[in-house]
Amino acid sequence: MTMSSTPEFQAQPYQGIATFGRRPYDPTPRGADVAILGAPYDSATTYRSGARLGPRAIREQSLLLWGYNNALRVNPFESLKIVDAGDVDVVPVDIRATQEAIEKRVHSLRSSGARVLLLGGDHSVSLPSLRAHARDLGELAVVHFDAHPDTWNEEFPGQRYSHGTPFRRALEEKLITPGAYLQVGLRGPTAGPGDYEQARELGARVLTADAVYDLGMDGVLEEIHEHVGKRQLYVTLDIDVVDPAFAPGTGTPEVGGLTSRQILQLVRGLKGLNLVGCDLVEVAPAYDPAGITAILAANLAFEFLSLWGCAKGAKGGSARSQEKFRGR
Amino acid sequence: MTMSSTPEFQAQPYQGIATFGRRPYDPTPRGADVAILGAPYDSATTYRSGARLGPRAIREQSLLLWGYNNALRVNPFESLKIVDAGDVDVVPVDIRATQEAIEKRVHSLRSSGARVLLLGGDHSVSLPSLRAHARDLGELAVVHFDAHPDTWNEEFPGQRYSHGTPFRRALEEKLITPGAYLQVGLRGPTAGPGDYEQARELGARVLTADAVYDLGMDGVLEEIHEHVGKRQLYVTLDIDVVDPAFAPGTGTPEVGGLTSRQILQLVRGLKGLNLVGCDLVEVAPAYDPAGITAILAANLAFEFLSLWGCAKGAKGGSARSQEKFRGR
Amino acid sequence: MTMSSTPEFQAQPYQGIATFGRRPYDPTPRGADVAILGAPYDSATTYRSGARLGPRAIREQSLLLWGYNNALRVNPFESLKIVDAGDVDVVPVDIRATQEAIEKRVHSLRSSGARVLLLGGDHSVSLPSLRAHARDLGELAVVHFDAHPDTWNEEFPGQRYSHGTPFRRALEEKLITPGAYLQVGLRGPTAGPGDYEQARELGARVLTADAVYDLGMDGVLEEIHEHVGKRQLYVTLDIDVVDPAFAPGTGTPEVGGLTSRQILQLVRGLKGLNLVGCDLVEVAPAYDPAGITAILAANLAFEFLSLWGCAKGAKGGSARSQEKFRGR
Amino acid sequence: MTMSSTPEFQAQPYQGIATFGRRPYDPTPRGADVAILGAPYDSATTYRSGARLGPRAIREQSLLLWGYNNALRVNPFESLKIVDAGDVDVVPVDIRATQEAIEKRVHSLRSSGARVLLLGGDHSVSLPSLRAHARDLGELAVVHFDAHPDTWNEEFPGQRYSHGTPFRRALEEKLITPGAYLQVGLRGPTAGPGDYEQARELGARVLTADAVYDLGMDGVLEEIHEHVGKRQLYVTLDIDVVDPAFAPGTGTPEVGGLTSRQILQLVRGLKGLNLVGCDLVEVAPAYDPAGITAILAANLAFEFLSLWGCAKGAKGGSARSQEKFRGR
Amino acid sequence: MTMSSTPEFQAQPYQGIATFGRRPYDPTPRGADVAILGAPYDSATTYRSGARLGPRAIREQSLLLWGYNNALRVNPFESLKIVDAGDVDVVPVDIRATQEAIEKRVHSLRSSGARVLLLGGDHSVSLPSLRAHARDLGELAVVHFDAHPDTWNEEFPGQRYSHGTPFRRALEEKLITPGAYLQVGLRGPTAGPGDYEQARELGARVLTADAVYDLGMDGVLEEIHEHVGKRQLYVTLDIDVVDPAFAPGTGTPEVGGLTSRQILQLVRGLKGLNLVGCDLVEVAPAYDPAGITAILAANLAFEFLSLWGCAKGAKGGSARSQEKFRGR
Amino acid sequence: MTMSSTPEFQAQPYQGIATFGRRPYDPTPRGADVAILGAPYDSATTYRSGARLGPRAIREQSLLLWGYNNALRVNPFESLKIVDAGDVDVVPVDIRATQEAIEKRVHSLRSSGARVLLLGGDHSVSLPSLRAHARDLGELAVVHFDAHPDTWNEEFPGQRYSHGTPFRRALEEKLITPGAYLQVGLRGPTAGPGDYEQARELGARVLTADAVYDLGMDGVLEEIHEHVGKRQLYVTLDIDVVDPAFAPGTGTPEVGGLTSRQILQLVRGLKGLNLVGCDLVEVAPAYDPAGITAILAANLAFEFLSLWGCAKGAKGGSARSQEKFRGR
Repeated sequence: MTMSSTPEFQAQPYQGIATFGRRPYDPTPRGADVAILGAPYDSATTYRSGARLGPRAIREQSLLLWGYNNALRVNPFESLKIVDAGDVDVVPVDIRATQEAIEKRVHSLRSSGARVLLLGGDHSVSLPSLRAHARDLGELAVVHFDAHPDTWNEEFPGQRYSHGTPFRRALEEKLITPGAYLQVGLRGPTAGPGDYEQARELGARVLTADAVYDLGMDGVLEEIHEHVGKRQLYVTLDIDVVDPAFAPGTGTPEVGGLTSRQILQLVRGLKGLNLVGCDLVEVAPAYDPAGITAILAANLAFEFLSLWGCAKGAKGGSARSQEKFRGR
Repeated sequence: MTMSSTPEFQAQPYQGIATFGRRPYDPTPRGADVAILGAPYDSATTYRSGARLGPRAIREQSLLLWGYNNALRVNPFESLKIVDAGDVDVVPVDIRATQEAIEKRVHSLRSSGARVLLLGGDHSVSLPSLRAHARDLGELAVVHFDAHPDTWNEEFPGQRYSHGTPFRRALEEKLITPGAYLQVGLRGPTAGPGDYEQARELGARVLTADAVYDLGMDGVLEEIHEHVGKRQLYVTLDIDVVDPAFAPGTGTPEVGGLTSRQILQLVRGLKGLNLVGCDLVEVAPAYDPAGITAILAANLAFEFLSLWGCAKGAKGGSARSQEKFRGR
Repeated sequence: MTMSSTPEFQAQPYQGIATFGRRPYDPTPRGADVAILGAPYDSATTYRSGARLGPRAIREQSLLLWGYNNALRVNPFESLKIVDAGDVDVVPVDIRATQEAIEKRVHSLRSSGARVLLLGGDHSVSLPSLRAHARDLGELAVVHFDAHPDTWNEEFPGQRYSHGTPFRRALEEKLITPGAYLQVGLRGPTAGPGDYEQARELGARVLTADAVYDLGMDGVLEEIHEHVGKRQLYVTLDIDVVDPAFAPGTGTPEVGGLTSRQILQLVRGLKGLNLVGCDLVEVAPAYDPAGITAILAANLAFEFLSLWGCAKGAKGGSARSQEKFRGR
Repeated sequence: MTMSSTPEFQAQPYQGIATFGRRPYDPTPRGADVAILGAPYDSATTYRSGARLGPRAIREQSLLLWGYNNALRVNPFESLKIVDAGDVDVVPVDIRATQEAIEKRVHSLRSSGARVLLLGGDHSVSLPSLRAHARDLGELAVVHFDAHPDTWNEEFPGQRYSHGTPFRRALEEKLITPGAYLQVGLRGPTAGPGDYEQARELGARVLTADAVYDLGMDGVLEEIHEHVGKRQLYVTLDIDVVDPAFAPGTGTPEVGGLTSRQILQLVRGLKGLNLVGCDLVEVAPAYDPAGITAILAANLAFEFLSLWGCAKGAKGGSARSQEKFRGR
Repeated sequence: MTMSSTPEFQAQPYQGIATFGRRPYDPTPRGADVAILGAPYDSATTYRSGARLGPRAIREQSLLLWGYNNALRVNPFESLKIVDAGDVDVVPVDIRATQEAIEKRVHSLRSSGARVLLLGGDHSVSLPSLRAHARDLGELAVVHFDAHPDTWNEEFPGQRYSHGTPFRRALEEKLITPGAYLQVGLRGPTAGPGDYEQARELGARVLTADAVYDLGMDGVLEEIHEHVGKRQLYVTLDIDVVDPAFAPGTGTPEVGGLTSRQILQLVRGLKGLNLVGCDLVEVAPAYDPAGITAILAANLAFEFLSLWGCAKGAKGGSARSQEKFRGR
Repeated sequence: MTMSSTPEFQAQPYQGIATFGRRPYDPTPRGADVAILGAPYDSATTYRSGARLGPRAIREQSLLLWGYNNALRVNPFESLKIVDAGDVDVVPVDIRATQEAIEKRVHSLRSSGARVLLLGGDHSVSLPSLRAHARDLGELAVVHFDAHPDTWNEEFPGQRYSHGTPFRRALEEKLITPGAYLQVGLRGPTAGPGDYEQARELGARVLTADAVYDLGMDGVLEEIHEHVGKRQLYVTLDIDVVDPAFAPGTGTPEVGGLTSRQILQLVRGLKGLNLVGCDLVEVAPAYDPAGITAILAANLAFEFLSLWGCAKGAKGGSARSQEKFRGR
């Protein structure tokens, strides 16, 4: 569809068809800079299901996004051609078929020249996205915001694929450069001390929530920029990295997390890095009675788009040298 | 947008962009049989606001509609070309500007050859829809499902337009044929005995909820068919005609109303009448925690589409002569 | 306070201080026909507490009541002087102190000449109300709408007072005339067959929900009128007599109950009986997300007021001889 | 655990560990008459997920069940040895592994001599339960309460197992006697007219919701008793057979359904049939804000237990000859 | 009404008629120090409506306020004569009639000698309040807590009045002294960089949420005290200045906002300034399932009352010289 | 029950019977290190009731606890024998009978050698727990996390026992060593300045929320360790010490409270003290729509268990000397 007949930002948030940020719906775009793709799969969760309705809720709340990012000083809706590519045909009863479908759609969109922002669904959708990206680009640096390491070997006996295992698989499959893999925000009880240790042994730089508070946002961003450097970067953001007060609508909430302001600072602070793809997962609207989780997710998605808008606007110049990470 | 690349009913209800029934979004269609139009205006309500988000909620739940109507034996998505025309640019602070915008959009869609199913918004949106229909077609028969007569003169001192006055205005403006105007489902306390009397004096055939229960659905449908006859019929359905147990998500709920089954029977029983336009109003999602009001509204909208599908399929033949109204 | 400076029914439901039906707040009225009194006590419940906030929620939703009862053809707000007497100073930790405080307030209001409509709170508040009424009037006929008999001897070991025992106590204390005591709407699992048998042995005429459906509303009303006759009647209505679909906001919901329409018919059908007092209990707003339980309760309270309005308007004439019970 | 040290029904509903009806937890019982087993799997749903938390919610609300069934005149908690066998180790990412695990657990419990009441989870859990029953007993008569036929061949391309296909699979696998298979309560839009036709061609006796209303509950029960006769009967009850007003907490609600009273009548009316096993599925607590769906489900489970209690109490004598189906 | 017969703070929060802080209801007070006035208008919102029910919700939660402010060491309910003046007769369909009605009520209350605390409603209600204050007092210093500048020229084409324009109108109408106008807490996407620039060009001192975090609460208060000085100060507080975690119940939530503690510090820190009037707007209870937004709003209203209590108690003495702003 | 046949942490959070942390249910344990006991009593609350369902909600959410505490480096489920002792037989209508029952159960469990973690219920349950502990151990040091001092003399006239008085009673009864009694987190309006002063006069060291923010968590822990020293310590934690954003599900929320991270730091920082017993109270699930309050409570309970796990693991060694309080 084309929505060009209606000047886009005259439309009010309560109005109209809910594509992401009122971007045109186009499942097979040509020449787009960015494609937003939903992966409404939630069969790999271990507690509260419901993330399958995450993409729809994020789209709905994205209509609040007025377009100009005051922190990063860019209007990604103007500087980029962005499309809403709709949702992958996931198969709730079959994680392998789902992951193949996701990989295929992400690959196809990337082949058209678009960068992909994937909206989950649960965290198992990140693995096929990483596969599609690494197929073209080789090993990736990964910044992984999450309350949980998601680097278990098997969450269910004999099952290699679930929402707790994608990053071990990705490491095994050489999709991630181990030294350039950062886990940020981990906290809460685990099955044992091995959970974090294994993540470290697999090559992750683990910054627990405690570490995030100790370092401060600037310190965390220093770590990230140092480890990622000029590598191609994929960012995966599990909304449960944020405290349940700010993001109740998720499947496995962990108390003691980041604030909405902190996660905004961290994402904005990625400015200057070479972001090649990203995903945002685990928004479960059934546990989000006032919609604040989806609103936060829509804003974080907008920050990712803004990073790409900045990159297009200011080629080559590193944001880091010019301003503080907070994006003021 | 065209969604034709994806076979439409393979898509699952949790998936994809929420246009009504996955119909293509087209604000300026050509050659469509039916256009679905949202009017997200709720400033004329007298208790709980929130009906502005009704069209969006109904669209979301419409993805449950699989296409074939087993009661009426028709698939309106196949037999009709239906588009989702999006929402009118309403102006919450200005009811006159809003009503003008609605009338203009309805008129424009009708001029393209499409019949219009309008989704409110509060009941004040019916007046401009009636104006647009009567402009082309002259006086209309009207079946009006509601808990309230909505034929007050002024709900707020000096204000002729609000959600309690549209049908008095419509009668004054000669949009409705008085003898062919039925109010169905009235109940609850009113300002005085004059509320129903005035409606009757204005020409309405009033069937209170008590009368509906006494006559039974078949008896009500007899009354409707008798009064409407072969006239051009506009149907306006305020979801509060249904009991709050079945439709909690509305602004001024009245207890003692119809069941979901009864309202389905009544709408299906309109088969054979010459339906030229319709609206469905007062769905307020903020008071609909499990979505059942929007699901009911989506199904009722589907019944309206099905009536048009039947009319197209079986030109001339009166459904009434062939089968009972319940649509089995 | 006097609200007379504002014509009362110009005020819209979303507006103003929430006294019942916008009646003046007066804890110590003189010359009022009816006093509405809250008893916000819920410590005697056996499952979900929360009925202490019932009076406030009913008051809030009572602002929807426009004043004229179309079924009973009376405007109780005009024909009666009604006050909102506020709430009793209940003591959540002490049921005896609470019951004494309720009895004292009810007695005091009655001594001023007002009839009392008591809003619970849980069902334990009915006992002191019955005591205050019987103190003046002697033994009473009682119509008791409920899913549960509430005639246990002890619900907690050694505790004679709770929300499951008030009517056994009332019978023991000779507040109720056994042959003129009807329990209407009982259903659901009980501790044993003795629960209903004991009620019957104590003198209750038990009409289970099954019996209500078999007899129909007219049949039930025949039974009630026959047993009550010209006696002084107290009515106690536990909102859980209604099915949880229509009244989810209560502490011990029982499925398979009455509809909102049926309970309205039953209360309206009491017209012509000598109603001396009544209560409406067990509305728990925390389990009433769309407010429909409190709206139903406010309407039922309005029907009680209307019965008194009818009695004042048509002294002596029995409604039963003139029209059917449904109140059309 | 043994809870025998606490007299069971002195415990109040707000109190204690939530096993079903306070029955002892025993995953490997010996000598039990009935085992209640949860199957918390919801990956086969096509709209709102969340039924995995159904067993827990039903257990919690089951604490309202006081033990004596007044309609069927039996206390199943006294007349039967009932255990809560906990939940199957389902595997959300693998429907085949899940179905194997369910079949194994049901078979094991049955081998211990217990009849099994299975609590879903989505409707895909019925297939392995039927397999386990038919393995011992041969082809079964099946009464299937549902809004949907669930006899599709494939709901997702190439996927034979989901929540819309179990009964086609069961018929193909000769688990069900075609002539003794009744579908009760079907309604709503389907993919085409073939949905019901296929069910009929496969041997189902289809009683749509319209048919249920036309026949009345007694008529439906006549049909059921006639078709089932003395065969071994398995009953599967999808809570969406009930209208969303009475059961909002489910994944794919269909308006126009049965009332809570009607479904209670239908289940009670199975008295006298040879019930060998049953399941109750599709309760999704995230859409059940006041808990009324889980309360209804707990009561329906209690009716199943009561049927077994009656069978034990009154061997050989057919209930049908003695009293009406409504169980009064 | 007089509530003096009941010692006011013996009443418990669950009890009694919900006037603000149990203050007497008096729409036309004489000799009151402060009048609390509701303006239940929400037709000027651009996303979720519902703020019309804000005054009622704030009143209800205000019953939690025990009277003594430990931070500011004052009991405003004792040191001031405070009345609840009820609600303005707003007209949802007519913003001009509404604004006139508000201005008239505020003016009338001020003429009686009372200072006014206005409870919205949406932010459009501030303009008539400013007009009423400036009519008597001339240009005002304004501290404006908000996530949005609300200084657009037109939010809807051709409409000068809505909830996004009041402060531009106020500046145009010379109600505000430009150099003494501070906007505190702005953040989130805007239509373009011009939104903040225009606010600055119009004379506003803009302190974004980022600036607030950088300066700290003491730094912000330094700025405020410096710019306001001894001028007559009006404070307008849009609850969306607070993060949605702390205030989900609002129409256009913006993530990354202040905490409840921070806004409390900022309001308390106004001690010593010459506060002549204030409002608190945009509380939308339908999105506030646990009531925490209304509780916060009630506490902030209490802080405003406390500021007046301090001013009365300690005439002339500047609080700033004696203690830190945080009010310890 | 024994759950040993199922390896405990293979079970997923959505699965199985909800005992705390899947610990065996045993109301009369022998040889357990810790017994978790529920006290589902909420009749002593002064605003929103509902805490009686707190123990059940905490148990349900405790299934998220994977066992290993990364901050304190201990797995209490492995290093300690923990049982779930179920709930006390409380009597909602009789606070004295309830307090006797609690004291008896706590005493009995302690006599078996177990330390007790008590889950409320409202704060009145702490007094009998303190009595049971002091009976064996003599006067106790108490750390009391709360928004309110709970040291009133009488909350209801003539009533010495309610949820606002337990600690005055405990001081009067010499259960607490005055100099070793710390109140942490107080804030919000009180009846007068005397509320805090009385607490101080009774011997409490009062650290208001303001003081907590000024001192920082390390400073608060210094104070606590200094005052408690080597005394036997009882900790009582009212969840309303936390801000309503993080813990909306409580009866008398106070804004401006601690974050979830801060309360976790404070509880973990108690490591090294001689913890003899503890309770966690005032979780009211009806106001906790996304479950985040119960999740926080479950985690805090887990921290208490972890403190005991640490104590067992590292006898004698003070944690304080080895690491910072935050537990990293």
